[in-house]
Order: sequence, then C-alpha cells, then structure tokens
Amino acid sequence: MARDLTALFDPRSVAVVGASDDPAKYGHAVASQALRAPDRRPVHLVNRRGGTVLGQRAATSLAAVGEPVDLVVISVPGTGFEAAVDDALACGARAIVAITAGFAEAGPAGLVRQRAVADRVREAGAVLVGPNCLGIADNTTELYLASDRFAPGGVALLSQSGNLALELQLRGAPHGLGFSRFVSLGNQADVTLVDLVEDCARHEETAAIAVYAEDFGDGRAFARAAAAAGKPVVLLTAGRGSASARSAQSHTGALTSSADVVAAACRDAGVELVHTPREMTVVLAALAAGRRARTGRRTAVFTDGGGHGAIAADAAEDAGLEVPELAGSTQDRLRGVLWEQSAVGNPVDLAGMGEQRPGSYADTVAGLLAADEVDAVLMTGYFGGYAASEGGLGGGPAGGSALAEGEVRAARDITAHLAAAPKPLVVQSMYPQSPSCRVLAGAGIPVFSATEDAARALAALTARAPAAGIPALPLAAAPLRDPGYHSVRALLASAGVPFPAAREITDEDELLAAAEDFYGPYVLKALHVLHKSDAGGVALNLPDRAALLAAYRQMHARLGAPAYSVEAMADLTGGVELIVGVNRDPRFGPVAMVGLGGVFTETLRDVAFALAPLSAAHAERLLRGLRGAPLLAGARGRPPVDVAAAAAVIERITTVAAAHPEIAELEVNPLLVRSDGALALDGRAVLG
Amino acid sequence: MARDLTALFDPRSVAVVGASDDPAKYGHAVASQALRAPDRRPVHLVNRRGGTVLGQRAATSLAAVGEPVDLVVISVPGTGFEAAVDDALACGARAIVAITAGFAEAGPAGLVRQRAVADRVREAGAVLVGPNCLGIADNTTELYLASDRFAPGGVALLSQSGNLALELQLRGAPHGLGFSRFVSLGNQADVTLVDLVEDCARHEETAAIAVYAEDFGDGRAFARAAAAAGKPVVLLTAGRGSASARSAQSHTGALTSSADVVAAACRDAGVELVHTPREMTVVLAALAAGRRARTGRRTAVFTDGGGHGAIAADAAEDAGLEVPELAGSTQDRLRGVLWEQSAVGNPVDLAGMGEQRPGSYADTVAGLLAADEVDAVLMTGYFGGYAASEGGLGGGPAGGSALAEGEVRAARDITAHLAAAPKPLVVQSMYPQSPSCRVLAGAGIPVFSATEDAARALAALTARAPAAGIPALPLAAAPLRDPGYHSVRALLASAGVPFPAAREITDEDELLAAAEDFYGPYVLKALHVLHKSDAGGVALNLPDRAALLAAYRQMHARLGAPAYSVEAMADLTGGVELIVGVNRDPRFGPVAMVGLGGVFTETLRDVAFALAPLSAAHAERLLRGLRGAPLLAGARGRPPVDVAAAAAVIERITTVAAAHPEIAELEVNPLLVRSDGALALDGRAVLG
Repeated sequence: MARDLTALFDPRSVAVVGASDDPAKYGHAVASQALRAPDRRPVHLVNRRGGTVLGQRAATSLAAVGEPVDLVVISVPGTGFEAAVDDALACGARAIVAITAGFAEAGPAGLVRQRAVADRVREAGAVLVGPNCLGIADNTTELYLASDRFAPGGVALLSQSGNLALELQLRGAPHGLGFSRFVSLGNQADVTLVDLVEDCARHEETAAIAVYAEDFGDGRAFARAAAAAGKPVVLLTAGRGSASARSAQSHTGALTSSADVVAAACRDAGVELVHTPREMTVVLAALAAGRRARTGRRTAVFTDGGGHGAIAADAAEDAGLEVPELAGSTQDRLRGVLWEQSAVGNPVDLAGMGEQRPGSYADTVAGLLAADEVDAVLMTGYFGGYAASEGGLGGGPAGGSALAEGEVRAARDITAHLAAAPKPLVVQSMYPQSPSCRVLAGAGIPVFSATEDAARALAALTARAPAAGIPALPLAAAPLRDPGYHSVRALLASAGVPFPAAREITDEDELLAAAEDFYGPYVLKALHVLHKSDAGGVALNLPDRAALLAAYRQMHARLGAPAYSVEAMADLTGGVELIVGVNRDPRFGPVAMVGLGGVFTETLRDVAFALAPLSAAHAERLLRGLRGAPLLAGARGRPPVDVAAAAAVIERITTVAAAHPEIAELEVNPLLVRSDGALALDGRAVLG
Repeated sequence: MARDLTALFDPRSVAVVGASDDPAKYGHAVASQALRAPDRRPVHLVNRRGGTVLGQRAATSLAAVGEPVDLVVISVPGTGFEAAVDDALACGARAIVAITAGFAEAGPAGLVRQRAVADRVREAGAVLVGPNCLGIADNTTELYLASDRFAPGGVALLSQSGNLALELQLRGAPHGLGFSRFVSLGNQADVTLVDLVEDCARHEETAAIAVYAEDFGDGRAFARAAAAAGKPVVLLTAGRGSASARSAQSHTGALTSSADVVAAACRDAGVELVHTPREMTVVLAALAAGRRARTGRRTAVFTDGGGHGAIAADAAEDAGLEVPELAGSTQDRLRGVLWEQSAVGNPVDLAGMGEQRPGSYADTVAGLLAADEVDAVLMTGYFGGYAASEGGLGGGPAGGSALAEGEVRAARDITAHLAAAPKPLVVQSMYPQSPSCRVLAGAGIPVFSATEDAARALAALTARAPAAGIPALPLAAAPLRDPGYHSVRALLASAGVPFPAAREITDEDELLAAAEDFYGPYVLKALHVLHKSDAGGVALNLPDRAALLAAYRQMHARLGAPAYSVEAMADLTGGVELIVGVNRDPRFGPVAMVGLGGVFTETLRDVAFALAPLSAAHAERLLRGLRGAPLLAGARGRPPVDVAAAAAVIERITTVAAAHPEIAELEVNPLLVRSDGALALDGRAVLG
C-alpha cells in the first residue's frame, strides 16, 4: 500500500515555478540548487515575467515550457498557488513540491484550502510535498530542490524545521556524516511523514532515517513504519517540557501528543529518541559505523589515567550502559599485558603504561574484546595525545616521535583487533583530530571529543530488550452506548476481566435482596456521582447487612444518588493496587497507562505508557519496570503477587478499549493483584 | 588559620631537582617550563650528574646551588625522595612540589613514608604539594612548574588528575577561558584541597575555582571553604555510578563518599557540581561572563524558526530553568515589534521576521529584558547565519550583505540592551564563529553551538534558593556507652525528641506492671534482636493487657529475647511515617538522611541528604522537596501534617548524632508526623 514516490525523488524533468534572480526570494535559492545538475534531467525555470533567470531563459508559465514536466516546485505567492498546482497537473506533473506558505499553519481557512489542493493532486494520481515546506533533495539522484546543500551520505533527513535540518547538516560534517535525501515536511497535506519513512525504508542508498517532527500526523502509522523500516530510525522531537508543548501547539496548529506517549511509541518501535541536534548527530555518527553489540550493554571502560576512566564510567551508566567488574580471567589477561599499578577491574586504568608503551592500548582492547562478559568497549582520555603533540596539534608531555609512532601503530592494531571481533568500540579523545584518532575514525570507529557523546553513541550501539513492536488495532466492536458503571463492568467482564460480585440497586428492598446474593463484608458505591470517592460515595468493609443498610441510608441522605452498587468486598490483605487506564491520543490512538495505584499514581506518578492494546507479556514487562516494582515481588515481607495474572487482565482491558473507538477514556482503578490472582475493583469510561 | 602559601605560588627562587635533558623524563618537562620566565626569579636546575641541562649549568645537588632556594620541585626516583626533601629544607626551602610517586597510592608503607615526610616539612615551617603530583603553575606570578602550559585567565584549577586538567585547558581555549593557577593535588600529604581553596579564595586574580577531586580529604572543611570562598567554586567529580566508585577506591586507595553526600554538600555549600569536563567548561565559560540573574530562573527562550525554540525550551527545563508563559504586557510589546505570524508566548518565535529585518532580534531581546517576569534570556538557532554566510563560513540562504550587516548591527544593539539590564543572556547559535556572534562573545555574552550547553550555562547563571551553608559541628557530648534501645531513646528524649510512653521489661510481672502505667492499645518490641520487625519481634495494636500478655508469651517463646519494651501505641490515623538517619561519612562527617518511611524509603528511595546537624528550616526544605511531599501537604483527602514539628524533631535528632562522634549510625524510623505534631516511634544506634 506504500505510495510510489519515484517522481518525487527521481523525476524525469523538473520545473521551478517562481524562479527568481532576487536573492531574497526562496525561488532564487531553489532554482540555483536545481541547476547544479543540469545534465541529469531538464530543469525548467518559470517566472511570469519571463526573461532570464540565473542566466537561463525563463518560461512565463508552465504551459509555455512546451513539454511535460515530471516534478514541479511551486514557490509563488499564496494567491497564485492553486493556479500553479492546476498548471502543474495540466502539464503532466506527477510530483509537486509546494514551498508556498499560508495554509494550515495560518488557520482553519488555510487548512480547507490545503485539503482541497491535496484532493485535486491525489485525484490526478500525483503526489505533493508541503505546502509550507523548504524543498527536497536527493543526493542519490542529483536532485537539489532546497536552499541548502547536503553532503552526500547515508542518512535520509525528514524534517519539519528547516533550521534544525541545517544545524544537523553543519554538525554532521565533522563526523563525516552525509545525507542520501532531505525532505522538508511542511504541512504534510498529501505526502506524509509515514509515506516518506516507508519510501526511505525501501531506498537502498539510505542507511538510516533521521526525523525531526512536531506533528506526527498518524503517529501510530509512523511508529509502525519505523518499526518495519529494517534500518535505524532516529527521532528528534520536543514537547517534554511545558513550554515546548505550548509552542508546538501554537506553531503547527496541530494536535500534539504527550512526551510520554511519544517516548513509549519510540521504545516499542525501536526508534532511537533524541532531544537535541547534537545528540542526534552523535547517534547518527555512531550508527554510521554499522557495528552493533548484539549481546547486551555490558561495557568495559578504559583509559590511561584514572580521572577519565571514572568520569566515563559515570557517563556510561548515565547513558544506560552497564559497567560491571571484569571476570577474573579477563583481569588476569590484562595484568599480563599491563603493569603492576594498572587497575583491571573496570574501568581499566593503564596508570601510565600507555606512555611507557603505547602498544598497551591495543593489547588492552584485544583483551577486552576477547572477554565474554564484555559487549562493548569505551576508550577514553589521552589516546591521540602523543601523535597530536608530535604533529604540532599542541598539548601533551613531550613524548618524542617514538611515542607518536607507537601510538599510531597502536591505533592500527586496534582497528585490526576490532576487525576480528563483532563488538563496538567507541572512543573519547582529548585529541580527536590527531593522526592516531584519524586512523581509528578511518576504520569506522566513532571518535568523540566529549565523554558524554561517546557514552551516548555507545548506548545507541548496544542491545536492549527487543522492541515490543506496535500493536495492530482490533476490529471495532459494537459501540458502548451507556457509560454507566454497571454497563462498563459488563463490557469488561464479558472480555474476561474479573470483578467481585455486584448488584445495582435503587432502593432499600433491592439493597437487601442484593445482600442475599453474596456474603459480606460489603462495599457500597453511589453511582452517577462525579469523583465518588472524594464525595464520600464509597463505603468499604461493611461487615453485615445492618451495616450495609446503615451506610446506604446515610449515603443516600447525603448524596441522593439515583442508583448504588452493592458489592462483595475483596480481601485486600497482601494485595497491591494497580491502575490501568486507556486514553485516546489524537495522533497515536489508544494509549495505555499502567502503574501502581493510589498514592503511587497520584503523588509519585509511578506509571508506564504503551500503545494499546498491550499483550500480557508487554504489560508484565511494563509492570516490572516500575520504580515500585519491588512491591510486586514481595517487598517488606509480603508474598509476591501474581503479576502474570494482572498482565493478562491488562491485555483484556486494553483490548476492549482499543476495540471501542467511542470510548475516550477507560480506567480500572484499582486493579487489585494478590498472590492468587487479579481482580478489578472499579471501572469507569468516558465516551468521546 | 589559613596556611601561608606565598612561597608556593610566588617564590623568590626555584630549583628543579631531577631536571633532565631526557624528554621522556618529567624533570625535563618541568624544567623546560620553569625556564620560561628566567627574569622573574632565579631558576636552578639540579641533576646529580651535573653538566648542562636545557643549555643551563646544572648543580649536582641543592647544596651545590650555593644560595638559599625558596621553592624546590622534586622529580627524582622514589629512593632518593626523602634525601631530596632534607636537602631542600636544609637550603631554606619554604615550599616543596613533590612530583615523585610511589607513596600512599602504592600502599600502606607508602602512606607511612609520606606522613613522615609531611611531618618533617611542617616541622621546618615549610609546605609541600604532593607527592605523586604533576606540578603547579601560577600565571599571575609567572611560575611554571608543570608539564603543560595554561593560558592565563581567571580560573584556578585544582586537580587530582593531570589528564583531566589538560582536557579542561584544551576545552577552555575556544571559549577564551584562561587559568590563574593550576595545582596538581597529588596525595595531599601536606597542602590539601582545603588549603588551596582557601588560598585561591584570597587570590585576587582568581575569579573562579575549578576542582577535580576523587578524594576530598576533609570533605566538610572543603565544603565550608567553598561556601566561604566568595567566588564560584565548580566541582567535577565521579562516583555516581557503581563502576566509578569502585575505581576511585582502587585508584586513590582512599575512603570515598557516596555521590548523594557529595551532591548534598555541594548544594548546601553553593558549589556548582558538574559531571564531565565539557560541562565544567560550559559552566566556567558562563561564569566568566560575570553576569548572574539574581531574581530567579524564569527564562525567555527565543528563536527565528519554531524547531529550535521548542528544542531549547525542553533543554532549558531539563537544566532546571523555568520557561513560563510571558505576561500579556510583554506579549503586546513583542507583537508591536514583530509580525503577525510571530509567536510571543514563550518560546518566542520570530517566524521569519529575523530574515525580513535582523533588527527584530535586538528588539525582541530588549522587550524580554524589560519584562519583570523574565530573569534570563536564551536565544537559540540561526542568529549568526546571515553574517556567516556573507563571511564565507558556509550555509544559510543567500541573504546578501544587507542582511549580514543588519545582523551584525543587531548584535551590537543586543550588547547595548544588555549593558542596560542586570540579566543574563546566553546564546546558542548554529554559527558561533560568525561575525555577529563574535560581537556578542566580545561583549561577554556566552555563545555556544550546542543547545544543551547554552541551557546548562544559563542554569549556572540563574538564582536558586540560597545555599543552606555547611553547619558547624556541635561540641562532642559525653559519649553514649550503651547502644541499647532504651538508652538511645533516653539520649534522644533528653534532647527533646518526643516518644510514646514505654517501659523496658524482662518478665511477665514487669510487663503487667508496665501496662498499669499507661493505657492501651499497646506495642510490644523484643530488644537486642537484629532486624526485630523482620524477625517478628514487634507486635502492634494490642488492645488490652490480656492481648499484651498473650503477645509477650508467644514472642518470648519464639525469640527468647533478654528484654522487651512495652509501649503506648500511637494513633497512626492521618499520619505520615518519616525516616531520619544520621551516618558518619569518612570525609564529610555526620550526614543526615530524611525521607518518607516504609515503602517509600525501601522501594522508592524517596530520601534527601544533608550534612548534619540540620536546622529545622533546612529539614523542612528537604522534606518539602521529596517526590512524595504532596503526602505531607494532605494528598488523597488527608489533613496536612505538621511538617514544622517534624523538622524541629529532625534538628534535635541530627544535633544529637553530630555531638556523638562515637555513634556511627543513629536512626529514628518511623518518625510519625500528624496534623498535631511529630512522635518518634522507634530509635536505633550503632556505635562506631
């Protein structure tokens, strides 16, 4: 079902409508770039005044070009936009890149216009990027239709911000990062982020997909496309803080998703989520090396000079890596190639041995790569200094050329050791430009000058738990019409969610009859009362019928609720209360939240999110990842609770919610879990 | 009481013992540096083989120098070290810089040797830096006694790692950061970090003190010296992760403090704690500008192009800044200088206006600086690009020289606006080297290329709550001899810590007599039993004497404890359980931990630390900063509890602990706090 974007990325011919000699106009920048590859395909410039533009004859209209045009860039004032689109379709355009702004981003009327144009384009069997975009480029087909040049390489950059794309391009250069494609997403009236991720996934020359997005469009489809891409997808986005969320809303005029939801979708789709252009560059530079740790995140940190090792070990743990003590056999092996004062625990510290014999760096790498308990290696500190010093790059004790040569030789040996081992090595060096470090970088070993960058890079290269994947939505079930308590209970119960016995009652006779149906102690709940707990509409632990009746009379006198629920009181002893909720995110659809209930949810926000429905296995993983998870495993002398039973119930609850698009919110709170199973003690739904 | 280090930093003459022509020897590097300022003071080179070293006649011994030497650098093999020290003292040295290694860092015998040398030096009225150090430098007195050159400037760098000092020097250069002094701390056998902080605090040419330390020596004295320095102290240290803690221990052979304790001491001393060399450089570069926000952390973020604003707003909030919506009057003012599509909420987005009129950047800065609700401004994104593009620095839409000139003019206007406002501005620019950004940097405005660096810098420049300060230790009280429960209770009670009534009993008669003394319900505790709760040695809520007796018989049959405590059961209703503990840190002395008790402590580690004793005000601030603090304020419909009463009790508990150095651990758990006061329900002490 993926859309064919051939005409967009490799058109047979191109026209730039609004091409201009005025350097202040965007049509000037695009036309200049378009003309960089005149031999690849015809490039027509169109300016309604005709004459010459950029030294080339400009047609006064697309029709005047006199031949079919495969791709048309439209960079004209808003008033002429629709006419330009019609002209483009009329002369056979299969792809349109719409620079022109003033549509959805400018208000509801713009959205209507934009939709109408997109419909027309789709009816004609064409595709449109934008409007309100800054163009596209494809280095693999010599297509340059944006104002900036992008160095060629393997990253497809899909960005909703021109300036951020520019910063990523500038930052990538020192790391040798280049781009296969660049697409300015604009308003995504027709071609969406999802279409582009799917196309870049198929694009052989693209090794990694880098996305900056504020509005995900169909966020669930994006996550699914990213999960299926078969190549790394790195997402830069804002919205974690209160201010950026405000800004995104006003900037894109779009519905935004909470950062929790985006992070959960990325986790489950295997998308590498980053927060700044610098972090994105670091991750892309690491991924470009192509070498991943498949076995885990156990990292050996080593240096010559204790300070750097300790700092890097902290940075590694901050980045989510593990830095465990090395096995005795590995320590023995390292002791064999190092000297007495070297530390071999992890971090490993050559303790001056590197200055005695630079080859000891390479010996250490070899020893660490050979260790079964080491998934990845982080080298940090001075390495590079001897050769840098010799090469006039400054700094470092005068080591003489012997040290410098030894260091470069060590660098070569390191690359040889690495070639024989399927594990990643990342380097932090005070001298990243030194000849020794250039040897490493030349062999595809990521070298950074900042410790935290090296640690972040290695985190991107090491194995975590496999991504859970993005769940398919179940078919919509017959809609729930009545969001009343007993109706919601019935819906959930029919899906296999266990509840204590309960009866809805409206008077004392029914109350007493209900109490005959099951044993006490009882619970009495007022129905159709907002925030019933806070309003005193829940009475727990009523030992017998008399207490139940007294509670009813007292509650009814106070609240006068139209109905009540009489329930069997569950035995809370040894139990843990969970909360399970499903909300509808405007972009990602039904999103589940699970957490420890009561004070944990309300005060400590100890909750986890995932796109619904959740499998029981996924739910169990989320529960066991909560900060308060030790409670589930039996902290404070309690018996462990049946997390698997709770997870199975969560699967059922979230599946019900996902099958009922009319339910805006569905919540079971609390879901009691004990050592002998899970029981839903209350349920609530809000229709959308 | 501060030590006189004049001879160390501005000696009348210098000798380098172990000076060498061999570039592999450290005595070569130090001697080369020492000779850089031959006119400032006599520099004698000593090499036992005599001859010439570095083209200068070398004396065969210090005695052979033939005149008194004020400062002696000793860089000889370990076996000759003590003799060299004696020689130095004999020829009148008042300061010794001991490069020679192999002392405390090599094991206990080395520690003994090192202590003996330090004693001898002190007896002679001299001072010694090291041993196992890499030298010192003082740019303000042209004293160069380390292997590396440090660019002159205002930062005193005190480092326990030579390589990290070198990295800080390399990183500082692009930011124009220079150093007043550099001291390699070595083993601190005589001159300590504390001595150096105190001396640098007095040193006029030093504007900020940068420390890398693994072993703080007297950590409390360090924190107190830093708090009293009257200038910024920035501390880089490791030990947050498990691996770096392991490493520090093995590297320095020293007792290390937990990262929690170091962080608490820094918070209360007003020390800026950083985790990487890059972060330290960013903070120092920010502090060098000298301009601080005095009123708070409310930050206006602005950009031209939405993406950067949102990313920077998130980074700002991540760094602890606030990014609140701007006041209506400020928004109106900004609307007056911007255009319709600009966003003026915060982040502010010029939305292309900057490209129309670069002066709008300056107008925006002026508008934000004038706003009462703005403490600081963070400008982010493209600014610099027009001039960079013109200047051939690459990138950016072709704007022409008019835009470039306008941008440089805007930069000048920004510096003028800033000169009139006592608020900090920090800039993130994609083009930090552009002419426009150089105008800003030249006026002392910190400019960074990475968003997270700009945010971190601004966080260092904005006001937080005033540091609590480092408390003085109370005079030692008469030692506690008996760590038994009732003895500890008595000690605490005598200091004003309230407990429920209790009696220690050893048989049934005493039990029944005790029950006459106060009303039930009762609590029965087995004494002298380890982990009495887990062992079933605590029975709560015993309603009457019969229940008490039954519990006693059952517990005694099971545990056979030598004694028991009968207590009045406190009413837990509406109460919150706190935990208060004081431990002795090997470096920082008594350290208090306060937190929410029970599951919050054990499972969620919701606790805060501070050097003991705590004032009640400080204790209250810590309690109110806990994640679970909403519980104290009356979450879930409970009444708020009397936090002030709890804080007053915490002051008393921590003061007792601080006055009893023989108590290694003192814990009150739980400390029950209700709306009507606080009550200690259990106490425990471990003698050191």
